Amino acid sequence: MAALTPHPDRLLPADPGVRSLARRLYETVRELPIVSPHGHVDPKILRDDTPFADPTSLFVQPDHYVTRLLHAGGVPLEALGVGEGPLPEDRARAAWRLLCSHWHLLRGTPVRYWFDSSFAAVFGITSRPSAENADALYDRIAEQLAQPSHRPRALLSRFGISFLATTDDPADDLSAHRALRDDPAVGTVVAPTFRPDRYLEVGRPGWPALVKELGGDTDSYAGYLSALQDRRRYFIENGAVSADHGHFDAGTEPLAEADAVRIYRSALAGTVTPAEATAFRRHMTFEMARMSCDDGLVMTLHPGIWRNHHPATAARFGPDTGHDIPVAVEYTRALRPLLERFGTHLGFHLVLFTVDPTVYSREIAPLAGFYPSVYAGAPWWFLDNPAEIRNYQRAVTEIAGFGKLSGFIDDTRAFCSIPARHDMSRRLDAGFLASLVAEHRLDEDEAMDTLTSLVVSQPRAVFKL
Amino acid sequence: MAALTPHPDRLLPADPGVRSLARRLYETVRELPIVSPHGHVDPKILRDDTPFADPTSLFVQPDHYVTRLLHAGGVPLEALGVGEGPLPEDRARAAWRLLCSHWHLLRGTPVRYWFDSSFAAVFGITSRPSAENADALYDRIAEQLAQPSHRPRALLSRFGISFLATTDDPADDLSAHRALRDDPAVGTVVAPTFRPDRYLEVGRPGWPALVKELGGDTDSYAGYLSALQDRRRYFIENGAVSADHGHFDAGTEPLAEADAVRIYRSALAGTVTPAEATAFRRHMTFEMARMSCDDGLVMTLHPGIWRNHHPATAARFGPDTGHDIPVAVEYTRALRPLLERFGTHLGFHLVLFTVDPTVYSREIAPLAGFYPSVYAGAPWWFLDNPAEIRNYQRAVTEIAGFGKLSGFIDDTRAFCSIPARHDMSRRLDAGFLASLVAEHRLDEDEAMDTLTSLVVSQPRAVFKL
Amino acid sequence: MAALTPHPDRLLPADPGVRSLARRLYETVRELPIVSPHGHVDPKILRDDTPFADPTSLFVQPDHYVTRLLHAGGVPLEALGVGEGPLPEDRARAAWRLLCSHWHLLRGTPVRYWFDSSFAAVFGITSRPSAENADALYDRIAEQLAQPSHRPRALLSRFGISFLATTDDPADDLSAHRALRDDPAVGTVVAPTFRPDRYLEVGRPGWPALVKELGGDTDSYAGYLSALQDRRRYFIENGAVSADHGHFDAGTEPLAEADAVRIYRSALAGTVTPAEATAFRRHMTFEMARMSCDDGLVMTLHPGIWRNHHPATAARFGPDTGHDIPVAVEYTRALRPLLERFGTHLGFHLVLFTVDPTVYSREIAPLAGFYPSVYAGAPWWFLDNPAEIRNYQRAVTEIAGFGKLSGFIDDTRAFCSIPARHDMSRRLDAGFLASLVAEHRLDEDEAMDTLTSLVVSQPRAVFKL
Repeated sequence: MAALTPHPDRLLPADPGVRSLARRLYETVRELPIVSPHGHVDPKILRDDTPFADPTSLFVQPDHYVTRLLHAGGVPLEALGVGEGPLPEDRARAAWRLLCSHWHLLRGTPVRYWFDSSFAAVFGITSRPSAENADALYDRIAEQLAQPSHRPRALLSRFGISFLATTDDPADDLSAHRALRDDPAVGTVVAPTFRPDRYLEVGRPGWPALVKELGGDTDSYAGYLSALQDRRRYFIENGAVSADHGHFDAGTEPLAEADAVRIYRSALAGTVTPAEATAFRRHMTFEMARMSCDDGLVMTLHPGIWRNHHPATAARFGPDTGHDIPVAVEYTRALRPLLERFGTHLGFHLVLFTVDPTVYSREIAPLAGFYPSVYAGAPWWFLDNPAEIRNYQRAVTEIAGFGKLSGFIDDTRAFCSIPARHDMSRRLDAGFLASLVAEHRLDEDEAMDTLTSLVVSQPRAVFKL
Repeated sequence: MAALTPHPDRLLPADPGVRSLARRLYETVRELPIVSPHGHVDPKILRDDTPFADPTSLFVQPDHYVTRLLHAGGVPLEALGVGEGPLPEDRARAAWRLLCSHWHLLRGTPVRYWFDSSFAAVFGITSRPSAENADALYDRIAEQLAQPSHRPRALLSRFGISFLATTDDPADDLSAHRALRDDPAVGTVVAPTFRPDRYLEVGRPGWPALVKELGGDTDSYAGYLSALQDRRRYFIENGAVSADHGHFDAGTEPLAEADAVRIYRSALAGTVTPAEATAFRRHMTFEMARMSCDDGLVMTLHPGIWRNHHPATAARFGPDTGHDIPVAVEYTRALRPLLERFGTHLGFHLVLFTVDPTVYSREIAPLAGFYPSVYAGAPWWFLDNPAEIRNYQRAVTEIAGFGKLSGFIDDTRAFCSIPARHDMSRRLDAGFLASLVAEHRLDEDEAMDTLTSLVVSQPRAVFKL
Repeated sequence: MAALTPHPDRLLPADPGVRSLARRLYETVRELPIVSPHGHVDPKILRDDTPFADPTSLFVQPDHYVTRLLHAGGVPLEALGVGEGPLPEDRARAAWRLLCSHWHLLRGTPVRYWFDSSFAAVFGITSRPSAENADALYDRIAEQLAQPSHRPRALLSRFGISFLATTDDPADDLSAHRALRDDPAVGTVVAPTFRPDRYLEVGRPGWPALVKELGGDTDSYAGYLSALQDRRRYFIENGAVSADHGHFDAGTEPLAEADAVRIYRSALAGTVTPAEATAFRRHMTFEMARMSCDDGLVMTLHPGIWRNHHPATAARFGPDTGHDIPVAVEYTRALRPLLERFGTHLGFHLVLFTVDPTVYSREIAPLAGFYPSVYAGAPWWFLDNPAEIRNYQRAVTEIAGFGKLSGFIDDTRAFCSIPARHDMSRRLDAGFLASLVAEHRLDEDEAMDTLTSLVVSQPRAVFKL
C-alpha cells in the first residue's frame, strides 16, 4: 500500500540552493497563528461544538472543490450526497469509497494537497487513499471524529486560528457570533462578514419579500439605505471588519438620486427590467463604498462568476455545486466612478479579488500601485493553487510591491483544510522570496521581514484587525 | 561547420535533480506507439505511397509554420513556392537555400526543434543547415527520398504511428481511407475526421452550390439535417471517431425551428444576411452536438482565428499561408446553451482547443473540471510550443486534474515532424511531472502512471479509440 | 546599517549550471554601448548641461514610477513635490527622507533594482537607504551632483549611450537637438521622435487653436495633411527615425476622403462628436502609416492606457502622475486595415507595444510572425520588469523567433536609470538564452550571436539607425 507522508520540503523550490534558503524563511513563520479574514465556515458548528457526523459530511458533501472533480471524472453528484445533510452510514461509506477509488482524479490539484496535509496532520493517516483502504480510512477518521479531541472547537484551537471571519446574511441575528464572543473558553475571535449581494440585486425573483428581512422601513429608497446602514452598524457592533460583494461584474456607476428612487419603486412593484436592476446594483456598489468610508468596513470585491452554469444541476442539488464558471472581468473602467470619488479617502480599504488572472498585471496591480485604498486580493477559488499563486506573486509585486498584497485568504467552507491552505501559502511565499534573494534582488533580512509581514501584519492592517 | 546533434536530454528541466527524475520518467514512454487523433496528413500520399518529390515540397512549401517565419524575416512567399505544387529543381533548390541561409530566423521556435529532430532521426543529418551546406543537405535528403526506406508508408511504419486521423470534407468519398483499411500491409489505422465547417456557414460565397455536394435532398432544412446525419454515418462506417469544428467564435445558441427553416431558405436563395448566417452557424454547432450525442462522434472545437488576415496574400497564394491570426475567444457564455443541454449526456465528449491561452485557467479548466463531457484540448497551432505547453499543463491540471487533458494532438500537415512533435510532448510531460515529484506533490509511481496515461490511455479514452 | 552592494550575478538564473552559462553570455555584452531608440529624456538638460539641482528633483519628483509606489503606500504626492520644479532645500530633504524611510515599499519592484544599481554605480553609495541614513545619502548625492563629473553630459558619456531618442511635439523647433548635433563635444547621437497624438485627437479641448501650431495652412483637411508631412520632414532632417503614437486603442480604419474632410471641418468649428473624433483619429493612424511608407519613419504604437484615472490628482498635480491605468487591448481586428494596405510594404516598420501582456502570444507574435513590417516591442511601462520580460521573451520567440523582437527600449524620463535598465535587459536576455542552451534547444554559439543581435544589431535594424 502506498504511503501518505507529506514531505517537510513540499512546495519549496526544487533547486537545492534556493530550497535551503526557502526552508530557512519558512521555518520563521511555520508555527505562527492563522489569521483568516475571509471564509465560509458556519459559526454554528463552533457555537454548538457538536461532533462532525462522519468523514463524508465533513470532507465530501459540502465541498464543491472535491465533488466537481469527481463529477468531472464521471461520478454522479447524487452518489456523493451533494445537497443533502449527513447520509445514512451505508451511503456515507459508499460516497467515501468513491472518493478513495477516484483518488487519481485529484493528482496535481491543490485539493489533493490539502487532503494529504490534513489527513496526515489531523487524523494521523499514513497511507494513500485507494479503493482497497477506503473503509479502513473511513473507520479511522470516524472514530477520531467521535473523540473530544476532534470536535470543532478543539480543532479550532489546535489549528492555531487567532482570527476567523465568516460570511453572513445582513439579516442574520449573529447570535452564534455573540455566543462565541461571550464564551471565555473560545480563544479565537470569530467575526461576521456583511454580505449583502442578494439585497442589492433588485431584479431577483422574490426580492420584494426578501428586502423586508432587512428590517426598518424599506418601503422607500431612503429607508432601504438606512436599513442597510443599520445592519452594517449591527454587524460592526458584533465584530465585523469587512463587507463582501460578489456580483457578476465590477460596475460602480452611480445613478442620479431620482433614478435610484424610481428604479427602487419599480423593484418593489416587481416591474424592474434587467437593465434597470443592473444599473441599480452598480449604483449600490458605489453606495456601499460610500458607507465603507463612513463606517470603516473594509470592502472586498469578488466579481466575474457565471453562477449555476448547469441549471439542471442547480435545480436538483442547489447552488454552490461546482458549476459556477469564471468570465473575463474588467476593473479599470468599471471601478473608475468609485475610485474617482473614494480612491484616496483616508482609511478606505478596497480589496480586489479575481478569477480572471489576466487582470493582475493589467489592472489590479496598476490600481493598487497608485490608490492608497486598493489592495490586490490573494488568488481566490479556481486560482488558489501553486501555479496561479506564483503568477500572482510575480505579477503584482513587480508592479505594486509587497505592501499592496492582501495577505492570504482561505475562502473555504472546508474547515479541516484551513491549516493546510495557510501552510501552502506560507511555503509559496517563502519560495518566492527565496527566489528573489537567490537572484540578488532582495537581501535575506528583507525577505524574512517581508514574509512575516505577509503572514501577520499585512492581513491585520488590510482588514483593520 | 556547426554540428546538428539533438541532445538526449533536450527539453528536460535544467535542474540536475529534476532532470534525472524527468529522464527516468521519459524513458518509460519514449518508444511507445504514436496515437494521433487529430491532424492534416493527406491520406492519398499514404494510399499511393508515391515517393516524396523533393526536400522543398516535403519540408517547405506546404508548411505555413515554416513559410510564415521566413516571410516575416523578409523572404517572399513566391520564392518559397507557396501555393504551388512541386517545383522545377532549380526553384526547389533555390527555395531550400533560402530556408538554410535563414536558419537563424527559426532560433527559439518549435519549428527549429522539429526540424533538428527530424533531420537527425529521419535523414541522418549531422550538421546545422546554413547557406554553405544547403546544397549538400538538399542532395542528401533528395537521395534518401528516392529510396524505398523513405516512401510514405515506410516512414509511417518507422514512426510507430498506431492511429492517425486525417481531416476531411463531408462530401469526400473516403476511398483513400478504405483502400488503406483494406490493405493488410498497412499497420496503422488511418481514420477520417468529419469537418463540416463550410457547409454550416451558409453565408459563404457559393454555399447554395456547395451544399448540394452533401448529397440527399438539401432543398429543405430537414433534408439538410438528414444529409449531414447521413454523411456522419458514412464517416463513422469508414472509421471516423470525431467531428471537428473551426468557426470564428464558439457560439452555440439554438434557433427556434421556424427561424432555422426561414434562414435556411434565405441561404438557398442567396439572400441571407451576415447576422442570420452567424446565428444559423451557432445553431448548427448546437445541432452538431446533438448529433454527436446520437452517433457518438467526439466533438472538437477550434475557434478564435481570423482567417486570411492579409487578403492580397490569400488572393495570390491561397488559404493557410501563414496569416490566420488569433483573436480573443470566449467559452463560458458561448457554450452555455450547448452544455446546458448536452453537458452531462453520457458518452458525449467535447474537446475544447484555443489559441487564446487566457481561457485555459479562466474558462476551459473550470468547464472541464465540472462537466464530464468536456476535455481541455492540448495547445494547438501557435501555442504548440514549450512555453505555452508548460502554461497549459500548470493552468489546467491545477484546476481540473490530469484526467481532463485531451492528450497530445499534433494537428500537422508536416508528415515528417509527427514523431518529433509527439516526442516533444512526452519530454514536456515528463518534465512537468518530474517537477511535481521534486516539489513532493506527487509520488514517483503516480507520475509514471500519469505519464503513461497521457501518452496512451487518455487520447484513446477521449477519442474513443 | 544594511549594505547596498549590487551582486555581479544579480538577475541571472538561480540554477548554478545555467547561471554560469548566463554569466558567460552576459559578459560578452555587458560593456557594449547603449542604443536607446525610445525614451523621454528632455534634450534641454543635455544642451544646457546645467548641474542637476538636487537628489529629489533628479530621482523623485519627475518619476511617476517612484511617486506612485510611495503614494500607494500612503505618502501624499504634495509631500514629494510632484508637479513642482526644484523644491527649497528643506522640502527637498523632507521628500528624500520619505523615499528612504519607505524604502521597503519598493521591495520586489524594478524601481528598487534600478535605484540600487544607479546609486551604487553612479554615486558610489554602499548602504541601503533608510530613515536613519536619508540625510547622509542626500548630502552625498547632492555633493556629487555639483561636480563636473556628474553634470548631464558627463553622465551621458560615462553611461556609454551611443544613440538616444527623445520624444517631441511636432511643433517643437528641435533647436536643442540641433545644438547637440552641432556640438563636436557631444559623442552621442540625440535624435527627436515625432509624437503627434494631440494633433490627431480632434475632439480634445483647445484643438482648433492647437492645430495652428503645426504651421502651414491647416484651414483645410488637405492643408492639415501637408502640415503634418512637413513637420515629419523637418523632424527627419533633424535626425528623427521614428514616429510614436499613443492613443486609447489601436484602431486604424480609414475614412472616405469626404468623411475625413467633413469631420475635419466640424473639428475646426468645435462641433465634432466624440464618435467622429475617434473615427478621425483611427483614420489618421492609417494616414500616419501611409506617411511612414513614404518618408521612412519607423511607426511605434503604444495603445491601451486610460489616462488620468483619478481626475482630482490630475487637476492638482498634472498628467503623468501615476494613475494612467491599462485596459485590455486588441490588435488583430484593429490593425487589419493598416496591415492589409501597408503590412508588406518594403521598408515599413511597425513596432507594437502593449501594457496588456495577454496579446503577446495571442496577437502580437502571430502578426510579427507573418508580416515583415511588424516587430514585437519590448515590455513597456508596467511590464518593464523581470517577470513580464521573461513572459514576453518566451511568448514572442516561440511564435515569431528572435528576429522580430524590437530590442530593448527604456522609455524613461529617469536619466540616471538608463544604464541600469539596459543592464537589466541584458542580464535577462542572457538568462533566457542560457536556459535555451541548458535545455539543448540552442547551441552556445547561437546564443552568443543572438544576444549580441538583441543588444546591438536588432535595435539598429528595427529603428533604421
